[in-house]
Amino acid sequence: MPSARPVVLVSNRGPLAFSRDDDGQLVPRRGGGGLVTALGPAVAGTGATWVAAALSEADREAAASGVVEGEGFRWRSLVLDPDDYRAYYDVVCNGTLWFLHHGLWDLPRRPRFDRYWRRAWDAYRRVNGAFGAAVVEEAPEGAAVVVHDLHLSLVAPVLAAERPDLDVVHFTHTPFCEPAALRVLPADAGAELLSGMAAAGACGFHARRWEAAFSACCAELGVTPPRTFVAPAAVDADDLAATARSEACAEALADLDRVVGDRALVARVDRIELSKNLLRGFLAFEELLGTHPEWVERVVFAAAVYPSREGLAEYLSYRQEAEGLVRRINDTWATPGWTPILWDTSDDYPRSVATLRRADVLLVNPVRDGLNLVAKEGVLVNERDGVLALSREAGAWEELAGVALEVHPFDVAGTADVLHAALSLGPDERRAAATALRSRVAARTPADWWADQLAAATRP
Amino acid sequence: MPSARPVVLVSNRGPLAFSRDDDGQLVPRRGGGGLVTALGPAVAGTGATWVAAALSEADREAAASGVVEGEGFRWRSLVLDPDDYRAYYDVVCNGTLWFLHHGLWDLPRRPRFDRYWRRAWDAYRRVNGAFGAAVVEEAPEGAAVVVHDLHLSLVAPVLAAERPDLDVVHFTHTPFCEPAALRVLPADAGAELLSGMAAAGACGFHARRWEAAFSACCAELGVTPPRTFVAPAAVDADDLAATARSEACAEALADLDRVVGDRALVARVDRIELSKNLLRGFLAFEELLGTHPEWVERVVFAAAVYPSREGLAEYLSYRQEAEGLVRRINDTWATPGWTPILWDTSDDYPRSVATLRRADVLLVNPVRDGLNLVAKEGVLVNERDGVLALSREAGAWEELAGVALEVHPFDVAGTADVLHAALSLGPDERRAAATALRSRVAARTPADWWADQLAAATRP
Repeated sequence: MPSARPVVLVSNRGPLAFSRDDDGQLVPRRGGGGLVTALGPAVAGTGATWVAAALSEADREAAASGVVEGEGFRWRSLVLDPDDYRAYYDVVCNGTLWFLHHGLWDLPRRPRFDRYWRRAWDAYRRVNGAFGAAVVEEAPEGAAVVVHDLHLSLVAPVLAAERPDLDVVHFTHTPFCEPAALRVLPADAGAELLSGMAAAGACGFHARRWEAAFSACCAELGVTPPRTFVAPAAVDADDLAATARSEACAEALADLDRVVGDRALVARVDRIELSKNLLRGFLAFEELLGTHPEWVERVVFAAAVYPSREGLAEYLSYRQEAEGLVRRINDTWATPGWTPILWDTSDDYPRSVATLRRADVLLVNPVRDGLNLVAKEGVLVNERDGVLALSREAGAWEELAGVALEVHPFDVAGTADVLHAALSLGPDERRAAATALRSRVAARTPADWWADQLAAATRP
Repeated sequence: MPSARPVVLVSNRGPLAFSRDDDGQLVPRRGGGGLVTALGPAVAGTGATWVAAALSEADREAAASGVVEGEGFRWRSLVLDPDDYRAYYDVVCNGTLWFLHHGLWDLPRRPRFDRYWRRAWDAYRRVNGAFGAAVVEEAPEGAAVVVHDLHLSLVAPVLAAERPDLDVVHFTHTPFCEPAALRVLPADAGAELLSGMAAAGACGFHARRWEAAFSACCAELGVTPPRTFVAPAAVDADDLAATARSEACAEALADLDRVVGDRALVARVDRIELSKNLLRGFLAFEELLGTHPEWVERVVFAAAVYPSREGLAEYLSYRQEAEGLVRRINDTWATPGWTPILWDTSDDYPRSVATLRRADVLLVNPVRDGLNLVAKEGVLVNERDGVLALSREAGAWEELAGVALEVHPFDVAGTADVLHAALSLGPDERRAAATALRSRVAARTPADWWADQLAAATRP
């Protein structure tokens, strides 16, 4: 979708990752991360400029030559002070704003906004300022600028002040906190965050609920709200289908089939992430076995989960708790030839896709989630008319309510009931539900998502 | 204040507590607990009937004789099944609703609404039903019935169904959760709770903010809201003055003076309670010492804190964390002759009042609090034009904003700044602020609070 108008995309992580080949030459390949996966196909080849941080040493060396190109992308990379970057990324983005918007704090104990946090907030400001300066430098006259996610909430004011010719959109990938939760941030930081976002011409979210929360926060703090819009991300069906057809995926599926046999399969595919609600998922599965003994030895729960953010102590301890719980449940219930829960932490995308293909029930039960693309991937790639049991606290619930089964993520007994209901559906009901789910999910593409963002950059 | 109209007061804990004297006779004395302290003087001698649970073995024996009288109270006590009572009180009231309304959950891990919790919820229903049945039996025709607190959210529907002649008021002592937090409760329990309260003719709260949250929850769930009213509780100034004049208080004050000497005194008086924010209070005090070394050896922090709810594991571990933190800070900063933090866990009211009398700065920094009477007691009893540093998340903030210093409870650096500012005020500023605080707090009495509740029972 080439765009008539110049476009600048701004995000923490860029479209490319450099490494050195055998001859010592810097070679670009497509970068990892959800945004590049989701937007890459729509953006590549359009001539848009992507402003993003240089993450590795090779990236930083490549950045020395200014704008770099590869895989259809034009990347203006930023070299940031490593201490600033760590404070910005670990302390503010992952350790503060992520927790804020997902409601993950144990408030009697955390957060603690002390003077060290204040320094990290200063670093967040500086990094946002550096992104802003790069856009000021790179953006063609009158360009549409799309800034992504909570990392870059303070970029828009720089552009508003120095480049009023630009039309700036900010898009948030996480949920957005309600006003009562925003009160947890230091008052000045909360106001700065909201004003920063509101300096964009438009702010986008994956779901109406997060849009409403953002607007309510603006009202509470007396910040004039920008235009807002809702544009849920979508799955790249071709890319997913290619993985599903791969040899690696076929092997992973064969491995899984050998273990599961003719049993029913409940599955989850997630990062090991505090918001994903692994613990209550396993507890609900155990309650299913306890309250419906007919499922003992007849169902397996495959947890295809992979480590995440292990630089934060909270994530390490959460992983240990989840592993301990799985061990305890398996010790309690296992019989010769049957292990109730398969705990697999290999970071292996074909393995994840194989799990989604084979699932009879896909459990997606986050305590709160901006969207949740796994739910959509599962719908598209599943081969058994699998049932989707989806948290009402995920942004995707707004698109899939009525066709997915509703999970209340804190209600362990209720989740067990949903698992039982899902496993008990007859083939006709499963087929009808799966067909309806597929048609809802397939109705939207990554190109639609990107088009919505660009449309929001047009002044009404 | 004798009331022309018959009145029934309903609360978990009653106005009397029985014990056996030397002759084995059951003897009543006034019961403990905040409600009896606050409302007792206004209610005693009015002929009102108080319906409440029998808590001790002696209470249960006294209850065998039906309504019991003493200290001016007429008490209809309920004997409840001990297992039901424990589930109702520990699991639902203290372990669920308290956490819900104060925002104390570590949501990635707790709560877990499993089948055991479901049984506790059934017990909560049964206990509320028993309270309702007792009121149905005892209430004179056309009586005003005032039901207190989160323990008894489901009493009003019983009365609406069986005694439409009664005018029922429900008063909530805690904060009330916002709609996003209410979503954490199982959907049916949340709806039942709101509908139960809404079956009263009027619902009262200590602060406009909790009233607004309740109304927003009703709107979100489509529950027709009852009339609502705001009626903050007040301190019994005579009772407090009597304690302040007591020998025990004089001795405690002398003890404190010996330790503090001519240093400035920062003080807190609190239950050891997750909502009270002990940890960040100590961290802020440490940050004060670190950022303003002129206070080293010149200020003492007296923490008059007493154990609470130690039957719940969360409270035991919170106490340990607080004690460990105090030890660590004292180990870091103490010098010969100076201990920065005095940690005193004796449950000794005259000692608490002595601490309030002597404080130069009273720190009241809860993460969330229905009202906070300690803030008001401190204002009335302090003898040094002490400064009140008050959390904006306490209900009392609505009454004292503008005359108390504002504490943002999660902002450790900001709290340290407030402590420094409070300690640095000159005598004239202190006197002016203390005078303004006293006149605000003294403007309202327990009789006003009780009159507001009775007035709300009158159909408009």
